[in-house]
Amino acid sequence: MNDSEDTVFMLPGPVKMHPRVLRAMAAPALNHRGPEFKEILTELRELVQYLFGTKGEVAILSGSGTAGLESAVSGLLRKGDKVLNLVNGKFSERFGELCAVFASPTSLTFDWGKAVDPARVAAALDADDYKAVTVCWNETSTGLTNPIAEIAKVVKKHDALLLVDGITAVGGLENRFDEWGFDALVMGSQKCLAAPAGLAAVALSRRAHESLHSETSFYTNLKAHVDGLAKQDTPYTPAVPLFLAFREALRMLKEEGLEARVARTRKLADAARAAYAAIDVDLFPDPRFASNTVTATTYPPGIDDAKFRKVLREGYRVILAGGQSQLKGKIFRIGHMGIASFTDLAACFTGIEGALSALGHTFERGSAVAEIARRA
Amino acid sequence: MNDSEDTVFMLPGPVKMHPRVLRAMAAPALNHRGPEFKEILTELRELVQYLFGTKGEVAILSGSGTAGLESAVSGLLRKGDKVLNLVNGKFSERFGELCAVFASPTSLTFDWGKAVDPARVAAALDADDYKAVTVCWNETSTGLTNPIAEIAKVVKKHDALLLVDGITAVGGLENRFDEWGFDALVMGSQKCLAAPAGLAAVALSRRAHESLHSETSFYTNLKAHVDGLAKQDTPYTPAVPLFLAFREALRMLKEEGLEARVARTRKLADAARAAYAAIDVDLFPDPRFASNTVTATTYPPGIDDAKFRKVLREGYRVILAGGQSQLKGKIFRIGHMGIASFTDLAACFTGIEGALSALGHTFERGSAVAEIARRA
Repeated sequence: MNDSEDTVFMLPGPVKMHPRVLRAMAAPALNHRGPEFKEILTELRELVQYLFGTKGEVAILSGSGTAGLESAVSGLLRKGDKVLNLVNGKFSERFGELCAVFASPTSLTFDWGKAVDPARVAAALDADDYKAVTVCWNETSTGLTNPIAEIAKVVKKHDALLLVDGITAVGGLENRFDEWGFDALVMGSQKCLAAPAGLAAVALSRRAHESLHSETSFYTNLKAHVDGLAKQDTPYTPAVPLFLAFREALRMLKEEGLEARVARTRKLADAARAAYAAIDVDLFPDPRFASNTVTATTYPPGIDDAKFRKVLREGYRVILAGGQSQLKGKIFRIGHMGIASFTDLAACFTGIEGALSALGHTFERGSAVAEIARRA
Repeated sequence: MNDSEDTVFMLPGPVKMHPRVLRAMAAPALNHRGPEFKEILTELRELVQYLFGTKGEVAILSGSGTAGLESAVSGLLRKGDKVLNLVNGKFSERFGELCAVFASPTSLTFDWGKAVDPARVAAALDADDYKAVTVCWNETSTGLTNPIAEIAKVVKKHDALLLVDGITAVGGLENRFDEWGFDALVMGSQKCLAAPAGLAAVALSRRAHESLHSETSFYTNLKAHVDGLAKQDTPYTPAVPLFLAFREALRMLKEEGLEARVARTRKLADAARAAYAAIDVDLFPDPRFASNTVTATTYPPGIDDAKFRKVLREGYRVILAGGQSQLKGKIFRIGHMGIASFTDLAACFTGIEGALSALGHTFERGSAVAEIARRA
């Protein structure tokens, strides 16, 4: 049965949305320049500051996470500004492509699945004068979390701006925005918040906010978005239904508590890793840096990506992701962030066990799901 | 009573959405890289071509109408390219500000409320060598429709690219994309389509598509969006719920028929204009160019904008818009596009009559609404 509305939805984003969020989104049109929307923006700004763990300036853009990254890069850098891109996956690679449009980037690359090495970052920063460093905190494409605190320490020592893609990190991983010294941190609505896709939020350090310029951007002009939100306004027509849904998802985060959300996400990740170990499926990334929001695993020999995901989809209504770019056909990925639960995970692994078994992988049936249930 | 969910919602956009559209939007998350979403994009591409009246290339961007305009300007022009901005209102002015980021614009200005004069456009194009001309087809800020066919004729004669802001025109005004020779035409989801805010669509001439470049844009890279859609894909994570709502709104347009929608919009505008005449409220723009999607009217002497709209909102739950920039406090505006009906218009004018009367404007009560009912 192929039912797109009743699935076990385990993509590494967009992720499953709560009915509360869906209902909030489906509200009738309202005046985005009227007093009610100003109240909504006031609440949203506070909730986004809570999410980022900062009292500083934040923005919400009507666009994907990429729009948020663009706003930071185009607002803080200029052509000619040297920026060091730390690349160890598809999204950090894309961050570099983005920088090529607005600044003058150099890539420092690491194998996909290996973490960024802070010592190599330090060496690169010693060797040349970079205005900024970009890093993808949590590489969704490889299921890897880079050692962000250590990287930040190195970057701060060299006084470069630190621009962080936190799209699948913020709201799911421990975050100390001020202490670590991020200058710009970007999140996407459809990941750890479990809101619909289509919004990005950005948090800025004080020095970053003060140095924003508007020379090369218009729609993603971060200065216009930040300063607009501070006075309960948006520079252009906002995607109102997404703002309403995002607010509801942020309220749900606050009800649960950010620390509790992060702790629950970690427990789910531990359970997922134990479940894979039980059925002889290997993590793709260096296990020391395995992500708590996305688990990426290597296909056992002989398992075909397209067939596996078709059996999952059609036989079990389980939706997960394959690999991207150089990892296409080699790995598969699940997301366990946002409102994902142990019951979701058990449902997901019921499908994974069934599909792997049907395609010839041998293991003790039930052992993965038992690992989940044991920890639930 | 101030009830934000049960209003007579008559803004010049976002406009009232049909429950079908709201229900389509509130669907559970789905895989934007899976087979089902490819089918959705296939259908959407055909429906957007129907909307624009073209078989050529189109794109859908997850962003507001401004994002759509930026995609056209940044994809077709470069710094140093001379572009002539025809400016006679807030949105044509903004189109010029956008061009200043990506190209080298010159403004040809006309009084707000007066139409662009094709003869002056011809003179400007004779006097200098412009690569492109921008025009706001329907100036939402003044309720004026520029004589687009005549302007297009002049621009084509000079072989310049014609970039058209059709945000409150497409789907509400007669459109002959190929015949008139538009090179880029942009619409916004929340206007004549009555979908939620947050998406822009762009249609391109063949020569425009062939000359797209990717040098100065990333999120709004039009080439990536157009070529992506042609193979049922999006360059970045799309705002899936908005795509679903947009599809439903486009289906509703097709069910009604584009010509029937345009004709109905015109009848509503005629009724609104007759209603205002009956209560001695003057149109703001030159009546020969009064828009069929947005009616802008001058406040009678002594009527305060904030008070008027407060009485409307709190006493009648009627939501309409005031003026912007230089017209703030001087005019008010209603939208009658999308799925707006004669019954909506009668409800709206019941409030307008009541509020104007309460604030001291004298006229025969009931005469505006009678004009609506007579034409319904």
